[in-house]
Amino acid sequence: MFDVQMVAEVSRAVRESSPLIHCITNYVTVNDCANVLLATGASPCMAEETQTAVETAEISGGVNLNIGTLHDGTLEAMLLAGRRANEVGIPVTLDPVGVGASRFRTEAAKTLLSQIRFAAIRGNMSELKALATGAGSTKGVDVSAADAISEANYRERARLLRDLARQLKTVVVASGPIDLASDGTIVYGVRNGSPMMGNITGSGCMLTTFLCGWLAGNNKRPTPFETLDAAVAAVCAYDVCGEIATAKTQEKNGGVGTFRTELLDAVTITSPETLSARAKVETISLD
Amino acid sequence: MFDVQMVAEVSRAVRESSPLIHCITNYVTVNDCANVLLATGASPCMAEETQTAVETAEISGGVNLNIGTLHDGTLEAMLLAGRRANEVGIPVTLDPVGVGASRFRTEAAKTLLSQIRFAAIRGNMSELKALATGAGSTKGVDVSAADAISEANYRERARLLRDLARQLKTVVVASGPIDLASDGTIVYGVRNGSPMMGNITGSGCMLTTFLCGWLAGNNKRPTPFETLDAAVAAVCAYDVCGEIATAKTQEKNGGVGTFRTELLDAVTITSPETLSARAKVETISLD
Amino acid sequence: MFDVQMVAEVSRAVRESSPLIHCITNYVTVNDCANVLLATGASPCMAEETQTAVETAEISGGVNLNIGTLHDGTLEAMLLAGRRANEVGIPVTLDPVGVGASRFRTEAAKTLLSQIRFAAIRGNMSELKALATGAGSTKGVDVSAADAISEANYRERARLLRDLARQLKTVVVASGPIDLASDGTIVYGVRNGSPMMGNITGSGCMLTTFLCGWLAGNNKRPTPFETLDAAVAAVCAYDVCGEIATAKTQEKNGGVGTFRTELLDAVTITSPETLSARAKVETISLD
Repeated sequence: MFDVQMVAEVSRAVRESSPLIHCITNYVTVNDCANVLLATGASPCMAEETQTAVETAEISGGVNLNIGTLHDGTLEAMLLAGRRANEVGIPVTLDPVGVGASRFRTEAAKTLLSQIRFAAIRGNMSELKALATGAGSTKGVDVSAADAISEANYRERARLLRDLARQLKTVVVASGPIDLASDGTIVYGVRNGSPMMGNITGSGCMLTTFLCGWLAGNNKRPTPFETLDAAVAAVCAYDVCGEIATAKTQEKNGGVGTFRTELLDAVTITSPETLSARAKVETISLD
Repeated sequence: MFDVQMVAEVSRAVRESSPLIHCITNYVTVNDCANVLLATGASPCMAEETQTAVETAEISGGVNLNIGTLHDGTLEAMLLAGRRANEVGIPVTLDPVGVGASRFRTEAAKTLLSQIRFAAIRGNMSELKALATGAGSTKGVDVSAADAISEANYRERARLLRDLARQLKTVVVASGPIDLASDGTIVYGVRNGSPMMGNITGSGCMLTTFLCGWLAGNNKRPTPFETLDAAVAAVCAYDVCGEIATAKTQEKNGGVGTFRTELLDAVTITSPETLSARAKVETISLD
Repeated sequence: MFDVQMVAEVSRAVRESSPLIHCITNYVTVNDCANVLLATGASPCMAEETQTAVETAEISGGVNLNIGTLHDGTLEAMLLAGRRANEVGIPVTLDPVGVGASRFRTEAAKTLLSQIRFAAIRGNMSELKALATGAGSTKGVDVSAADAISEANYRERARLLRDLARQLKTVVVASGPIDLASDGTIVYGVRNGSPMMGNITGSGCMLTTFLCGWLAGNNKRPTPFETLDAAVAAVCAYDVCGEIATAKTQEKNGGVGTFRTELLDAVTITSPETLSARAKVETISLD
């Protein structure tokens, strides 16, 4: 069973250690990703040059790779940074944005998976399936209707996610109305968050970036929690901030603009205790 | 005469069909452009790789090209995506940012015009003139004083715009204190909007992106309106949102930061009925 | 002694002349940099193509170079724009983001320094030291603990900064709890600003961009102030806006999202008189 106190513990570890997170990411949401790291107490370094990839990974606490707007140059930088991160023992996360929607991204993801050991991969169910099978059909960057997680199918999806985690040999997190996370053995369901989170660009990119910050912070603890636990803690925390931002946005009768501001605010100011108190995690039994 | 009820109709069509819009755009305002699409109910895909251009265009409802920060690579991706969009019959829009300010952009625009049929092109009067003549002098990305639309000259500008539409064989929209739109026969003047819209970066980029979303939404209607009508509906709607955002910003004694937030909020929450009710369109007689 | 009335004077000059500022900058904070220029009354042009660099510099009032996400292509564009700006006599500013953190950036900075005369360079103390020595160790993009300016060491840092200014033959501005600025003879300390400014991404990038806008505005005055004076005026003004934004954010119990909005608002609406009235500048005696 997941102990929700871990959410507060990892939150504190991030703020105390302020890990530098090296992000090679897309230019659509890069500013939001940098700001979400600052909001949670980490320190962003958004450098994608191949020339600096190795050096930057060496001084970082974690490396986050996002293929949302991939170029040949950034793929090379990702490989350099990711491999070096593996050597120095810091967590590497992957956001396989839009994988399955084009051969280029699918091939790039395969290359990354073959050369880098990821601590965690976060995407939607379509992206994760495409990652495991090397094929798939996503609607651009959104989950396809056939793959979406729902109240009716989440146990079945949980089984699929467990199998994907075994195949990919890493922690996988699938975002949806119920977020699922698995290390290939256990599957947790997170019942936090809000539909409004899908209405701004970068909500997923920010979550994976935030996750990397939290895994890096967890690594700085004297006795780190298991990666799956720290990942679930991060998902809960981010989702709780999404709930708080949704309530504030509705109070103000706001839209996309207000929600974006409120989300960054909630990540900045919500206390570790509140994050823990609001976390709703269930262990999904698969027998 | 323009029927303002079309504004509400197209707004509903966008929200109901949620068209995927493939944007190859500039990195300055890309985040705002993605968010404005989400705010109006469309779905953004900001992918500029040549490797995915064709595949992405195929699954999209519209393609928006913006030359604000053009590279050789993005020009090629634009040509691939635009030609494929023409083949599959989805609207392609162009924002000729800063054309006329440099030979590189002017040449790039010529290439795009020679290989792609655009459903609509939106710019300021200087950019549109430069596009038609292959020369011109803009002040960076702003309209030159000599080309600006005013109460005194808008009929004359309307005639010029009609001629540009004929020459470019597409719907053209010229932004200014009075926005003008023409298909080469009719010219409409839109008397909505606010000067504050020019005080944030990306106001124009967002409008062209929004326009693409609305043309794509219109295309999903059982009997689509004429492109000129749908384009004018989009301009009205965006301008009305600008007016609402201006009023809110003034109430709060805000500036550039607040206006940006309020604009995205207004696009999110303003009802189709309000958009229609506030739309002010006149047919400009040219004889 | 610095006359705080110069703050109001330069502010007015920027709003009256609305100089076009050609920015070759990083994609992380480019949107914020464009908006801060608009907020202070200048006009942004964020073009990084080598093909347009010379032409754009020619029509601009200032050129701002930021190496935050440098590519080979942007370095070439920077050299072209910077050299042309020197020829036509408009100010060029440099933000040496992360220099010293990688050989690539250090070498790039050296190349820029060898070919372009900068009107002013703004960074943190680690970056400025790395720039002068061609080596150094920064923590990603943040100042290292050993180099940070504090109440205890600021006189000693002032001396170092004066020497760096002599060596670099330009005005240098070092950001910190007390901002320092020197032309190699005088050193000023600015006691404005707020720690919250470091909690959003782009705070430094925006300051250097803002500084370029103010140097360009100053240049349009019939009798321009000395570059050091105009630079100190810009630092004061930006810092005062940071103080105002901090107070507003605290009132609202906001975080990163609100602060970002409030900062742009404060730059938009704070009057020249308020900027002058709140400016706190001391001359640091070095004997």
